[in-house]
This record gives sequence, structure tokens and C-alpha cells, in this order.
Amino acid sequence: MMKLNFSECARSVSNSATREILKVTEQPEIISFAGGLPAPELFPVAGIKAACEAVLDEAGEQALQYSTTEGYLPLREAIAERMRTLGIVTTPEHLLVLTGSQQGLDLTGKLFLDKGDVVICESPTYLAAINAFKAYSPRFVEVPMDDGGMRMDELELALQANPNAKFIYTIPDFQNPTGRTMKLERRKKLVELANQYNIVILEDNPYGAIRFVGKDLPPVKHFDTEGRVIYLSTFSKIFAPGLRLGWICADESILNKYVAFKQATDLHTDSFAQRVTAKYMELFDLEEHIQKIKGVYRARREKMMECIDAFFPKQLKHSAPEGGLFIWVELPEEINVQNLFKKCLDNKVAFVPGDSFFPNDAKINAFRLNYSNMSEEKIVEGMKRIGNVLNETLMLV
Amino acid sequence: MMKLNFSECARSVSNSATREILKVTEQPEIISFAGGLPAPELFPVAGIKAACEAVLDEAGEQALQYSTTEGYLPLREAIAERMRTLGIVTTPEHLLVLTGSQQGLDLTGKLFLDKGDVVICESPTYLAAINAFKAYSPRFVEVPMDDGGMRMDELELALQANPNAKFIYTIPDFQNPTGRTMKLERRKKLVELANQYNIVILEDNPYGAIRFVGKDLPPVKHFDTEGRVIYLSTFSKIFAPGLRLGWICADESILNKYVAFKQATDLHTDSFAQRVTAKYMELFDLEEHIQKIKGVYRARREKMMECIDAFFPKQLKHSAPEGGLFIWVELPEEINVQNLFKKCLDNKVAFVPGDSFFPNDAKINAFRLNYSNMSEEKIVEGMKRIGNVLNETLMLV
Repeated sequence: MMKLNFSECARSVSNSATREILKVTEQPEIISFAGGLPAPELFPVAGIKAACEAVLDEAGEQALQYSTTEGYLPLREAIAERMRTLGIVTTPEHLLVLTGSQQGLDLTGKLFLDKGDVVICESPTYLAAINAFKAYSPRFVEVPMDDGGMRMDELELALQANPNAKFIYTIPDFQNPTGRTMKLERRKKLVELANQYNIVILEDNPYGAIRFVGKDLPPVKHFDTEGRVIYLSTFSKIFAPGLRLGWICADESILNKYVAFKQATDLHTDSFAQRVTAKYMELFDLEEHIQKIKGVYRARREKMMECIDAFFPKQLKHSAPEGGLFIWVELPEEINVQNLFKKCLDNKVAFVPGDSFFPNDAKINAFRLNYSNMSEEKIVEGMKRIGNVLNETLMLV
Repeated sequence: MMKLNFSECARSVSNSATREILKVTEQPEIISFAGGLPAPELFPVAGIKAACEAVLDEAGEQALQYSTTEGYLPLREAIAERMRTLGIVTTPEHLLVLTGSQQGLDLTGKLFLDKGDVVICESPTYLAAINAFKAYSPRFVEVPMDDGGMRMDELELALQANPNAKFIYTIPDFQNPTGRTMKLERRKKLVELANQYNIVILEDNPYGAIRFVGKDLPPVKHFDTEGRVIYLSTFSKIFAPGLRLGWICADESILNKYVAFKQATDLHTDSFAQRVTAKYMELFDLEEHIQKIKGVYRARREKMMECIDAFFPKQLKHSAPEGGLFIWVELPEEINVQNLFKKCLDNKVAFVPGDSFFPNDAKINAFRLNYSNMSEEKIVEGMKRIGNVLNETLMLV
């Protein structure tokens, strides 16, 4: 048998523990709050079918042919229009359609990171962003959060200690995994600090449109004065994740590099999926569809919060998300979250242990709950089961 | 304005000259033999429409939801079945569905290349493979070709001179850009040499199914005895490139790394496109569709070869492809191919100057012609125009 001679970063890659966890939780008998999946029963299947038919009837050949790396112009126009309503004035020239926003994370790593370069991120942060950046062998500097998001005093210390850090990665709205939202004044301060320390901000905003409590806050990019905020978003949470459609919005000098690297990575994003999505937005009201999603997720989030009150030990702290998909539950130090997870699996209920969300060592003992993908009935039953395991475990401590 | 602080490889990336060329050639008044596009009038639009409807009716929610990184199992089963008919015995466990085979080139770079590592490739070779690998800052060692493909005596010299080279990149069937096919005995010898020098082979086979002269040859992977051949292919040339569907076939120890890196890169390939393609293969006969493509491309290739004989100066050498999409035309040293290209553009006809296909300095003065994307009428008119420019240019030399 041959000796394999991989690259340095490939030698260090193993199948992630979380990936293996998620496979187990996919068994149908398990009530899973583990994944970050949207509710499939809300997908606009009939509308997408109509859009497919229209696209194939009107422009079948173009929809199935190679197309430009930048993306389908009418789709970029529709995205620019949506972004303007969110507080970012932009044009199609500043937008690149991606194969899901995950691709934006990978390309950002490729664009900015040499081995050992510093990425500053929230602590904890999105698991798949950690994995995307890790392929470029950076060093992660984690900035503590509180209920108002990334702490700006701690960020400034991190910037002082790492003057050559390459970018600040943040999920300001309904963060994954904590569900927390960055306060308005911190968004302004974040841009000020980035200007002061000459660093790029990567704003990852997959959930921002799914707010059901309180008022929308302007994205960090809204406050960008020097073209240093790179904004990343996706159709996955507001439309259909299976189509793998995301986008990046950035200054032209930066976007041109993304286009060149995207071309070398997969030439362009699925032409058909782009046209179908643009056609759907032409034929139907995407905003109306998002309102429907919000209504269902709001009810599921309320139900899960009620269940925490009803079934979980009183001493546990947890986040109270104003939108998005996740609640973060903190555990007493004495509880081993992996053992807790195994006991819950024995009871046919799952979540994601918190340690996966820390790029270095886990700093907080916690777990992440998802409420978007389970019915209210299953939420009640599943939360009861976790509550029982938690109460038993705490009695034994 | 901010100072940008990109990664080393991003600093060296500029918008490729060829990319700019291809933009010019997209103008509708130009007869373009430049791109590598399939004939869109052959896309099975009605069949794909029927497949879309069936998928959305039968499994709309699953088709629009996140799915596994490995790819949709029935599609992998259909691919395994196709690969068996080509001489590669495999199973879905050894297959990973990609966002186009271009993604396989990028992931191979990520998996094997650290800065300065050696990639051995044919000279010339596929432009977008050069760009994909370049993102990992390797050194390219080019192996000369003749009409029988990569020369094995030259390959052995390259292996001796570069004992730590990471992989050999080859396009054995109807190579891009030359249209040449690697001889049977060289395929065997290639695997023998790879075994002897302990190196991985990346076999890129986008065109193999499109043979219209002579008999199919077994893929290099057919001769693989030690699991060191990584096989890459795509639906782009036999079905529809816009859907961005490719695949990789490799030993499990290698494939697992591709899966982990693919997940970090874009999570998974478009679920809907995968199901639509699998459904099409269930409802219709893909082999029959490929026969139709072959018939049309054969006629276009014949027409282009006739035009070379009729309109081009007699002293020019050119390849005689047995399949695929391209003819390679070699020029006398005295002709500047970029000037020739500009004159042709002035005459509203385009090709790709050969220098783009050499990762180091161009070693052969040549250009690439594509015949799949233009009607026979346009082929005659366009080749006449190039012939006129060539004859004029040669008279001036």
C-alpha cells in the first residue's frame, strides 16, 4: 500500500467529532436539536416548481450553460435591492454570488490567511467557519462575549496584542451558537476599532432576516466608512439551503480577488439555481415568505424557552435570542457536557456540545439547542427528556 | 483608504489575461472558437424539466434541504454504474459528488500542496487547473507531449529530478488544450512509474465519454493497483455544465480527506441539482443523449478539420482529436500569437492563444480551437477568417 504524502493542513484534518455526532442524530427516532436546519415544511416547493418551469421555458439553454463567475445579473440586482432595505447601499458590481455562504468563509481564508496568521473571532463561534479557516493554518484569537455580543474592551486588547491580525470574524445577528445579538453601539465601535487598527471585518449574516423580537439593527457594514467590512449572507435560511446560494458584498478592490479565487475554486455558482431563485423573487413575494418563517420560528422559540423554564434546573443560564435558530445553555463546571450528551442520546434526544464552537480550548461549559427544525410537540417532548437527564445529573454532582 | 493585507498567494493573483479575452469573445458578433462550451442547443431541456417536476413532487422538501457532503446516494450509485462501463469497478463509498470537477482540482491542491511543492503536468495543460493549483503556490514541472500524450521517458526524468513531487496531473483523453489522447501502453507505464516513485496520479477525465473516432481506451485508474489514482469527472460535457456537478473517485483513505475539506469549502453540492440529474438518468437514457452529442460534435470536428486543410497555410501542424472539444494548431516561431489573436479579433473571430496553457513559460507557439460550440456554417466562416489572417501574416514574415 502506498504512503500518502498530504499537505500539512490535510495531515492534521480528521473527521470532526461533531460531524460524527450529527450523523447519529440524523436517525429518525431521535428528537434532534443538534443541526442548524431550517424547517423543510416551510420550503416554497410549489413556487420553486413554477419558477423552474418558467426558467426552463424562457431560457433553458442559458440556465444550463456555463455562466459568469460574478453571478446572474438579475439575481445580483435583486440581492442589491434586498440589501438596501437592510441598510446597505450597494450595486451588483459589489456583489458576488457564492456556492452557499460557506464558500465565502473558505475564500476569505484563502484570500487573507498565510500559515500562522491571526483570525480574531467571537468566543464561541460558528463551527464550520473554524473548519473553513483551519485549512489555511491560522491562529485563532477568541474575544469573550456577553449578552450584547462581542465585548469591545476585550476586542481592543486583542487588537493591541495582535497588530498583524488579518481579520475580525463576527456574526452580529443571532449568533451561532449563542443566539446573541451585537448591540448597536458595539457595531459602531467595531468599525471604529477596525479603522484605527487597520483590519478587515468579515460580517457573517445568515440569520439577520429572521428577527421576531425587537427592532432590526443596521448591519456592521452599514457603518463601514473605509470599505473594510466584507458582508456575507445566504438564501439558506430565508429560501432553500439545498440550492447552495449565498453572496458576498465588498469593495471592488477586495471583490475582484474573491472573483478570481472563486473562479479557480468552482468556476461559478449553479446557473440554474441562480435563475430559479431570481425567477421566484420575480413571481412571488420573498418578504411574505420570510414573514411566514418568522411566525413559525417565533412560536418554536417561545415553546423552547417555556420548556427551559418548566423542565431545566433553575440555576442554568441561557441566552434569549431575538431571532435566528439557536439557544445557548450554560452548565455548571462540574457537569461533563460529553457525558451529558451521551445520556441524552440514550434518551433519544440530541444537541451539540459547546466545546465544538471554540477554536482553541473550550472556555465555557455549554451546549447549543436548535428550535427551527422540530415541531412544537417534539420540542416539548425533547426538552422534557433533556430536563430529566439534567436534573438527574445535577443530583449526582 | 485602507491598506489591504492579503495572503501571499492572493497578492500575486491578478485578473487573468485569458479571462479578459473570453469576455471580449462573448460579444455576439464574434465567431468564437475560444471557450470550451458545450453546444447549448443539445441540452435536454424538456427532460430536465420533467425531472425537476418529478423531484419536487416526490421529494421537494428533501431536495431543497441541506444534505450530506458525500452526495445523494442514488446519484453516486448511477455514477458507479457508469464508471463500471468505462472500466473502473467502484462503489458509492469511493465517490464524492463535487460542485463541478473544477472543485476537485481546488481540493486536490488543498489536500496535497504546501508552498513550493511540485506538481508534474503535461505541457501544455488545462488553464483552470493551473489556476486552481496556483492558489497553493506550488512549482510546476512540465512534461513534454507528443501525439500519444505525455511522454513517459520525459516523465521518468521529471520524477527522478523531483523525488518529492506531490502528484502527476494528467488529462489522458482528448486533452485540453491539445485534443491528444494518451496511448494505451503509456497509461500502463504511467501507473508503473507512479508505483515505482510513490506518487499520486490525478486523472482528469471530463471528455472521455465524447469519443467519435477509434475505440475507447481504459482510464488510467483502470490500471491502478495501489489506490494511488484519483479520478475526476463531470456531468458538464455529457449533460449540463450550468448545474455544476462533478465527482471524484478515490480510495477511502484519500476520499475521507476530500470529504472533510469539501465540507469546509461549501458543505455539500446542490441537493436539487443532484436529485434532478439522478432523476433524469432514471427517467431517460443518458447514454442515448451522449450518442446525440457525439454525432453533432463529430460533424463539427470534421468540418473544422476540412477547413484547416482548405483555408490554413499547409505548413501548420495540428492535432487530430479522436473526441472531446479541441484542436491544437502549432505556429511557426516567427509568428507572434498575441498579435495574430488581435488581428483575428479585428476580423470578428476568436481562439485562445496557446501561452495561457503553460504554467511556466510558453514552450510551444500555438493556439487552441474549440469546435463544440459553433454551428458548421459558423465554423466555415470563422475558419476562413482565421485562414486569411494566417496567410497574410505568413506572407509578411
